[in-house]
Amino acid sequence: MTDFVWQPEERAGVFHLPVRVYLEDTDAGGIVYHARYLHFMERARTEWVRFHGIALRAGLDDNISYVVQKLAVHYRQPARLDDNLWATASLVASGRVWMEFEQQVIRQQDQQLLASASVRVACVSLDTGKPRALPDNLKSLVKRQSE
Amino acid sequence: MTDFVWQPEERAGVFHLPVRVYLEDTDAGGIVYHARYLHFMERARTEWVRFHGIALRAGLDDNISYVVQKLAVHYRQPARLDDNLWATASLVASGRVWMEFEQQVIRQQDQQLLASASVRVACVSLDTGKPRALPDNLKSLVKRQSE
Amino acid sequence: MTDFVWQPEERAGVFHLPVRVYLEDTDAGGIVYHARYLHFMERARTEWVRFHGIALRAGLDDNISYVVQKLAVHYRQPARLDDNLWATASLVASGRVWMEFEQQVIRQQDQQLLASASVRVACVSLDTGKPRALPDNLKSLVKRQSE
Amino acid sequence: MTDFVWQPEERAGVFHLPVRVYLEDTDAGGIVYHARYLHFMERARTEWVRFHGIALRAGLDDNISYVVQKLAVHYRQPARLDDNLWATASLVASGRVWMEFEQQVIRQQDQQLLASASVRVACVSLDTGKPRALPDNLKSLVKRQSE
Repeated sequence: MTDFVWQPEERAGVFHLPVRVYLEDTDAGGIVYHARYLHFMERARTEWVRFHGIALRAGLDDNISYVVQKLAVHYRQPARLDDNLWATASLVASGRVWMEFEQQVIRQQDQQLLASASVRVACVSLDTGKPRALPDNLKSLVKRQSE
Repeated sequence: MTDFVWQPEERAGVFHLPVRVYLEDTDAGGIVYHARYLHFMERARTEWVRFHGIALRAGLDDNISYVVQKLAVHYRQPARLDDNLWATASLVASGRVWMEFEQQVIRQQDQQLLASASVRVACVSLDTGKPRALPDNLKSLVKRQSE
Repeated sequence: MTDFVWQPEERAGVFHLPVRVYLEDTDAGGIVYHARYLHFMERARTEWVRFHGIALRAGLDDNISYVVQKLAVHYRQPARLDDNLWATASLVASGRVWMEFEQQVIRQQDQQLLASASVRVACVSLDTGKPRALPDNLKSLVKRQSE
Repeated sequence: MTDFVWQPEERAGVFHLPVRVYLEDTDAGGIVYHARYLHFMERARTEWVRFHGIALRAGLDDNISYVVQKLAVHYRQPARLDDNLWATASLVASGRVWMEFEQQVIRQQDQQLLASASVRVACVSLDTGKPRALPDNLKSLVKRQSE
């Protein structure tokens, strides 16, 4: 018996990843620690690219990595232990080396918006850390999403 | 497209929880940070009780919490970014206030055993931290598992 | 032999907390995981209030907690394993229930700015999560800082 | 004003690292999350080698990394927000590729032992993950400690 279904889905161009809150995510204030939302949102970006056939580890093997360049988060309501959440990701802009996402964390039970964010990620060479063009498979995905 | 299915299951009395490895779980050694296996194993214990209808948060509301009393882990092979794992939990002994679990972390792709552990968890009063008897719903579950 | 000195200090109204980077802070990209900067910055805010005689745990006992309402981070250069950093905190605005901080993460070795952020924290009742006025000791500190 | 002094020290061959508990370390049970003790203990091992002039990052550049092979922890009393702790590390055995440590987490205020552990760490090649001999600087340190 579990009320949690792990089934990522895309709705109207917005990727939705189910996320469960565990004890590890909470703090002594009784709520999810604020930095953990960044984890949830990164999982959503990761699963979005994977949903479209792109694996991060294969990238690392090709000397490709990604770094967050900037982010802004607005926390509205706290998530709590045992909550089932949606972490969403939606590509809203991109350049030769970067992608920008709008992201949300939503409580499944009542569809309450808990946090919203804007996150910009850049592609870098793993060894030097220098920005580099998005790899072809990601460039194609970005192009498809913009159409 | 995703090769990951989140479907907890019990096989021959051993609870299996699917766990995905994200960047947050890894370290600069290129592998999963050793303390993260404890997170995976706690998720498995949490989902095991939930699988049987018991929610941790309802417990907190009743002043019931759980603490790890001791654990031993044997790390055999490292997990890596993007790996799909099983985190298992199997109740092997219990007392009035405690439960002991045998747990494993297994790589799904080749069924390789990555880590095995023994973990003893005790029930405590949330406010005082003092040991207390397992709540009735958990006591029943423990009893069913031992039969 | 260690080149790290843990000595928080205030310079021209900006609180500086020394932070060391450990393996736990890094990820498989070989750099500090982006969410960890939020931890470093919270440690700086925590030590800033403590530097001025206010302890968080005493607050919890009085049903007082704090939540991050919004934050924006600009990541400029990555921190790496073994780096000695400064995490700074500077109160720049406040209201009846909230405080706003400008914060930076700086590499000690060459004074390179690695990340800058703006973080707004609100005071809440621990039990209800509802906003409440800053406690008197913090109100006094905020007042002194604004003079 | 702060009651915390970050001053690692060796007493009778046991390395003592001061550790402060922050909100990030706690969970909704109001205590330090059990996996965090592993972080504290790794910081102690890291600072112990650094105390003796050996830096982990220089090792990574030479393709040298370390993995935990096994560990056992006995949790006795919980640590809480704002606690000042000692995380200790004492080398008790070693082989060509491994070191074994006895470690403790102690509350500074009353010298209460909160957790004790035994941790075995092996040296590996960063690229292949295969065990390799301890590097010369570490071998010398191990030798000096055993005398």
